[in-house]
Amino acid sequence: MREKTAATLRQAMEAAHLEDGMTISFHHHLRNGDFVLDMVLREAEAMGLKGLRVAASSVFPCHGRLARAAERGVVAGLDTNYMSGPVAAAVARGAFAEPVRFRTHGGRPRAIDAGELHIDAAFIAAPAVDPLGNLSGVEGPSACGSLGYAMADAAHADTVIAVTDHFLDHSPERISIDHGQVDVVVKVDRIGDPAGIVSGTTKVTRDPVGLVIAEYAARAIEAAGLLRDGFCFQTGAGGASLAAASFVRERMREQGVRGRFLLGGITGYFVDMLEEGLFEDIYDVQCFDLAAVRSIRENAHHHEISASDYASVGRKRCYVDDLGAVLLGATEIDLDFNVNVHTDSNGVIIGGSGGHSDAAAGAEMAIIVAPLLRARLPIVVDRVRTVSTPGRTVDALVTEYGAAVNPARPELAQRLRDFGLPVFEIAELRRKALAMAGEPVRAPQGEREVAVVEYRDGTIIDRIMA
Amino acid sequence: MREKTAATLRQAMEAAHLEDGMTISFHHHLRNGDFVLDMVLREAEAMGLKGLRVAASSVFPCHGRLARAAERGVVAGLDTNYMSGPVAAAVARGAFAEPVRFRTHGGRPRAIDAGELHIDAAFIAAPAVDPLGNLSGVEGPSACGSLGYAMADAAHADTVIAVTDHFLDHSPERISIDHGQVDVVVKVDRIGDPAGIVSGTTKVTRDPVGLVIAEYAARAIEAAGLLRDGFCFQTGAGGASLAAASFVRERMREQGVRGRFLLGGITGYFVDMLEEGLFEDIYDVQCFDLAAVRSIRENAHHHEISASDYASVGRKRCYVDDLGAVLLGATEIDLDFNVNVHTDSNGVIIGGSGGHSDAAAGAEMAIIVAPLLRARLPIVVDRVRTVSTPGRTVDALVTEYGAAVNPARPELAQRLRDFGLPVFEIAELRRKALAMAGEPVRAPQGEREVAVVEYRDGTIIDRIMA
Repeated sequence: MREKTAATLRQAMEAAHLEDGMTISFHHHLRNGDFVLDMVLREAEAMGLKGLRVAASSVFPCHGRLARAAERGVVAGLDTNYMSGPVAAAVARGAFAEPVRFRTHGGRPRAIDAGELHIDAAFIAAPAVDPLGNLSGVEGPSACGSLGYAMADAAHADTVIAVTDHFLDHSPERISIDHGQVDVVVKVDRIGDPAGIVSGTTKVTRDPVGLVIAEYAARAIEAAGLLRDGFCFQTGAGGASLAAASFVRERMREQGVRGRFLLGGITGYFVDMLEEGLFEDIYDVQCFDLAAVRSIRENAHHHEISASDYASVGRKRCYVDDLGAVLLGATEIDLDFNVNVHTDSNGVIIGGSGGHSDAAAGAEMAIIVAPLLRARLPIVVDRVRTVSTPGRTVDALVTEYGAAVNPARPELAQRLRDFGLPVFEIAELRRKALAMAGEPVRAPQGEREVAVVEYRDGTIIDRIMA
Repeated sequence: MREKTAATLRQAMEAAHLEDGMTISFHHHLRNGDFVLDMVLREAEAMGLKGLRVAASSVFPCHGRLARAAERGVVAGLDTNYMSGPVAAAVARGAFAEPVRFRTHGGRPRAIDAGELHIDAAFIAAPAVDPLGNLSGVEGPSACGSLGYAMADAAHADTVIAVTDHFLDHSPERISIDHGQVDVVVKVDRIGDPAGIVSGTTKVTRDPVGLVIAEYAARAIEAAGLLRDGFCFQTGAGGASLAAASFVRERMREQGVRGRFLLGGITGYFVDMLEEGLFEDIYDVQCFDLAAVRSIRENAHHHEISASDYASVGRKRCYVDDLGAVLLGATEIDLDFNVNVHTDSNGVIIGGSGGHSDAAAGAEMAIIVAPLLRARLPIVVDRVRTVSTPGRTVDALVTEYGAAVNPARPELAQRLRDFGLPVFEIAELRRKALAMAGEPVRAPQGEREVAVVEYRDGTIIDRIMA
């Protein structure tokens, strides 16, 4: 290992022979506590580099330096699956010279594996590096668990630079990324702020509307006949999703159902279900909290998987393909069941696909859970502002008033009705919301293309104007 | 998983759309108990296929069908790292239409990763398949441990067919090959004969000459200053190598040295050293016995690694690069320290590189251990019949009379002398052997090129004539 350790980040970057216009990549397991993206950009600016393209699996509010680097011309392009905070605002005001390319959590590694997204230098925030140079996500002060989103970068980038704040004197039980893929290792003071990397605990919502939606969602899964042995399940990490998971959990207990696996970004709530024996395994591309980090370190049935294995259509099969049900959010859903998670109804960028469209496409039943009105805005619109997830992959919308089922699945609608769930046409739900809140005035669409939305298979399915 | 399970091997092969001249690949973890290579060739013949190229990581005496398939034109070419038994004899008599290409354990995955060896269909003998289609080497009646040599095939072959005799009802703690790389799964009665897959136990030699060589080898390692904390070690699985390992073990105990890792094909003897705490980790590309299979299943510090990670020069670093010492065999070694492990002194094919030249190139000290005479033939020759491992990567020869050190390493020769070891010029050892046994008559070289020897970096370093 010694011969590939750089003394400073600058030396490590010089070893990559960076030039203007090159693509540098980052992963987002350190989430809103990540220091690495910003420290690399600071150094890139000091080196006088211009027109870089940043390929970051996600961008968080902590990444203010990226917005500044775009304004100063250090960065010209951005390729990401999700963004929030100052970078989203910078995109909207045209700070990036090129339109941003939004991908999905499965589409990004597909593009890397296929050579469509070429990475000149990958910067891997590595919570721990062993004496051979192997990378681990589960040890050290900045432990974040799975390094699943960094694996395609490590496998394909011309130069792979591991940035760490913790050298191990032993090999970890699990190696996230083998030293055979790493060119340079550099130690810095801190790669992240633990408070931003993981939350201490994730809690089930107490909001009464959220609880109603959650219970309807759980009943919809049961009604669809999915709560059987071998069930595979994914939800988001939000309070409402966890509430739905808690109802699913109760029903699994009552009925003695044993699920096959839990998938996706993992929380302590999922770990509890694994430890309780309700599911056999967790396949983890990203840990959301400390309980998940502990579990992936200690529990052999909590598996670290790559983003390619998780959701890439370039694989012969990926984990999302085995999902029975997935619960997903939305800022808007339209009469064709297209879902928007990129922009709000005024076109302001507030997120991105992440694994939304991947899980929707793979799951037997993709359920959008959302309140009928959010801040007095109807969730159901005639046409979403931005298509993030195509309606053909969405099976149902569940609100606090009941469900709407994609007309392509009449048998599912019937099952829900037979189970006693209130089921509406989606247009009825729209009319109901309009009757309560009226038709909101939408900001007009801008004239500058600031981002394109690439679907998981590489096709462009929408453009974002500002 | 259901939708990709074939009812019969024939159906699985038809799903791969095999055509005449295509390349089909196999791995050798089932060793001399493997049924899969032969059953596929039997089916290929029944399907009327001709001129196939077989890329098998190694070929054993159990593979008689491959020799027959060559004679009948079903198979035209063979690409392998090692062979013994009827196939070696068939090669010598020209049964294969094309010269065989010998590679190394690191060179084969390098060639696959680089696209030089394109595999149309990979047949992966999988001791267990979980309900998702993930492959495991550690469970089932044909458990063989690591599936390291199959990993490059799984990652790159156009079609990947898993042949198993054991379906799991759960996910194994360790997944050897993810279901995302597998196209088709087929269950057959038996993929192998356990008696041929692994040996019950591996034993230290009791042969007095072997013991002398072993002790000299261990002393040479100590003399070289390698027995220090962090020491990384590989030996073969033969009785003499294990004897040397036992002397190394004693010295490590006495001196309180803690090694970093044991590498290569793994035996119970290495497992004992891991469990005793003399080494921190085992990196395992292949298990040789039942104790190793048990250990890789149960011990988190016994890691399964791919052949690429083990020894490919296509990686930025591989495990052999960290070896302090490796003990290797030879059929012949010449005055330039070139080593032959492909043919005997009469040019008969008896093996192949396996990981010989990879480990020699990576290790700080590559030691050839061999008796000065074998069946009254001097081990040291003027010029080896076949160059398997270039002399520039070999540091010393150790025989029962003492050592010879590569003249490129005068400081090493001095260290051995200072340590009290008998050290000779290699030419002196040759003269000593000739004085005892006389100059043997060597069979003349044949006129037909039956094999080429490809070095780990892809260059052709020798040809075998018969």
